[in-house]
Amino acid sequence: MTTQNRQLIVKTWPNGLPRREDFELVDGPMPVLGDAQIMIRNLWLSIDPYYRHSLGPRFLGTPFRRPGDVMMGVTLGEVVESKDPTIPVGRHITTLFGDMQDYAVVSGRDARLLPDDVFGPGKLPLSTALGVAGIPGLTAYAGLIDHGKPRPGETFVVSSASGCVGATAGQLARIMGLRAVGIAGAPEKLAWTVDKAGFDACVSYKSPDFAAELAAACPRGIDINMEHVGGAVLAATLPLMTVHGRVVMSGLIDQYNKDVAPPGPNWGVILVKRLHVSGLRVFEYLDLMPEYERLIAPLILDGSFAYVEDIKEGLEEAPLSLARVLTGGNFGKSLIHIADHA
Amino acid sequence: MTTQNRQLIVKTWPNGLPRREDFELVDGPMPVLGDAQIMIRNLWLSIDPYYRHSLGPRFLGTPFRRPGDVMMGVTLGEVVESKDPTIPVGRHITTLFGDMQDYAVVSGRDARLLPDDVFGPGKLPLSTALGVAGIPGLTAYAGLIDHGKPRPGETFVVSSASGCVGATAGQLARIMGLRAVGIAGAPEKLAWTVDKAGFDACVSYKSPDFAAELAAACPRGIDINMEHVGGAVLAATLPLMTVHGRVVMSGLIDQYNKDVAPPGPNWGVILVKRLHVSGLRVFEYLDLMPEYERLIAPLILDGSFAYVEDIKEGLEEAPLSLARVLTGGNFGKSLIHIADHA
Repeated sequence: MTTQNRQLIVKTWPNGLPRREDFELVDGPMPVLGDAQIMIRNLWLSIDPYYRHSLGPRFLGTPFRRPGDVMMGVTLGEVVESKDPTIPVGRHITTLFGDMQDYAVVSGRDARLLPDDVFGPGKLPLSTALGVAGIPGLTAYAGLIDHGKPRPGETFVVSSASGCVGATAGQLARIMGLRAVGIAGAPEKLAWTVDKAGFDACVSYKSPDFAAELAAACPRGIDINMEHVGGAVLAATLPLMTVHGRVVMSGLIDQYNKDVAPPGPNWGVILVKRLHVSGLRVFEYLDLMPEYERLIAPLILDGSFAYVEDIKEGLEEAPLSLARVLTGGNFGKSLIHIADHA
Repeated sequence: MTTQNRQLIVKTWPNGLPRREDFELVDGPMPVLGDAQIMIRNLWLSIDPYYRHSLGPRFLGTPFRRPGDVMMGVTLGEVVESKDPTIPVGRHITTLFGDMQDYAVVSGRDARLLPDDVFGPGKLPLSTALGVAGIPGLTAYAGLIDHGKPRPGETFVVSSASGCVGATAGQLARIMGLRAVGIAGAPEKLAWTVDKAGFDACVSYKSPDFAAELAAACPRGIDINMEHVGGAVLAATLPLMTVHGRVVMSGLIDQYNKDVAPPGPNWGVILVKRLHVSGLRVFEYLDLMPEYERLIAPLILDGSFAYVEDIKEGLEEAPLSLARVLTGGNFGKSLIHIADHA
């Protein structure tokens, strides 16, 4: 067995897009196996946009690879030594911690043993365990099913549609009886998404008529948007959303390579913190009014609940009261007293 | 009974903040009662920020009051005539369609009969049926309970904290065992929110140290943010959100008076369309992997599921592959082939 372990080392945090010269391929030491660990020979390395966060102070993530560190990477490896009895030598695993190198030692708990009955000769190619049948595929599945809550007949839109997550999500949506509409850039990606992946339509975000073309591709609006881009792409989908539509923030590639956050409240936090953001209109809750009144009345009457009213006299005061509530000039509930009970 | 019906008429759509001269108080005709309708004498008029949308082409709403129309308004009225047997003359109702006038005719279905046992002499004042014990209170209740999903010990933040919705929501949160933190502007509002409404803290968005003061008031982060402002206020809360936190988009007063939407994907759509936006990180779904693999493998093997791989040879290609996935230069799942199975 070789004792050489080639490692891709971070030389310097990239300024903008990563370049070859920001990294260096070196002959590193062979890792040492500890208790409950396995050693793998990396066969396949997944390249994913979110890796960019590890390289320098990005506003969407924490830089956890510094100059001198081996670059992070999700890998598929062959087990060459094992001190974990559940992971035999010779089998294949995937791990988030394989890094960009020939050999890695990881805890058995951080490795996923690939099932023999799914991957291998006559079955799925190993490489798919990092793609359509791996984490990106699972992303599509969880996003569509768990976040999207799809129903047949609905319209599903996904950006980066020819990417692994997008293409998988769109095809799953189509199988489930939804209209699948993709957003992509290059003409060959648009063609593949429709011709090979069977999307109902795919629209180019590079088109000068992008918004109109997206609207035309979604004649009943967008019920589920699985977002991978953000920025102008997200801005084009939002006006087409149906009432009670679902937006699955799954990526925000528009921001991954930026040093400074775009202006305004950042949608990226939704993704990073896995927030649930929902729009409230009280008119959907009017049936709760009797329940609420009976809760609040005794609290007010016994003096334990505070409220303030900002009362003006006469209809003619309404315009200025409206101006005040728009600027915070009121204090408490703004009311106009028009008349007393006869 | 009088036959004079004073009405506040929209003269012109306001340019910016509403002014007195954008409206005109006129003696209008008495309305005529039709089948299943009631006539009310308006006693109280609620003034709410969202009325601004009715006055001109705003990007967040549809202008539905034109010059010459009576201005919209939610009112509390005394029933003076009735062709709806469920709503007796002499009782009080609230309605979204009372408008800014002395007398209104509305469908009985569009009126809510106020319960005698809650409102009236010795009980809650009538005016509270438009405020703390009415729609704004219900907004606070539905937002906190249904959207916020509160748990004792969590931190609840609400902007426009001394406003009717904010003050009610914060007090309900406190009753439910949450830490209630308000955001407001004027010193007397900050003081009232803490001293009278019992919030644990209230922070001024006008402070130069607003973000730091908000962070200090929320030492365990923000689990629920009920948003009424947007813009810089929302931007200050987002970085403090805890993982799986909830943002209830209940208002966006920062935009109500603007003619043009701010740059970037607009959070206002979440509010208007009552969207559900959620952040997805696949690492929370790894237990679904076996289920997903067994779903996807047969689809790939029978050729009904398309995927593309973008494969480069050798670790040294990783930096440029990373640059490509950040710019959409890849086509399909980006992979580096490192080695073959021994």
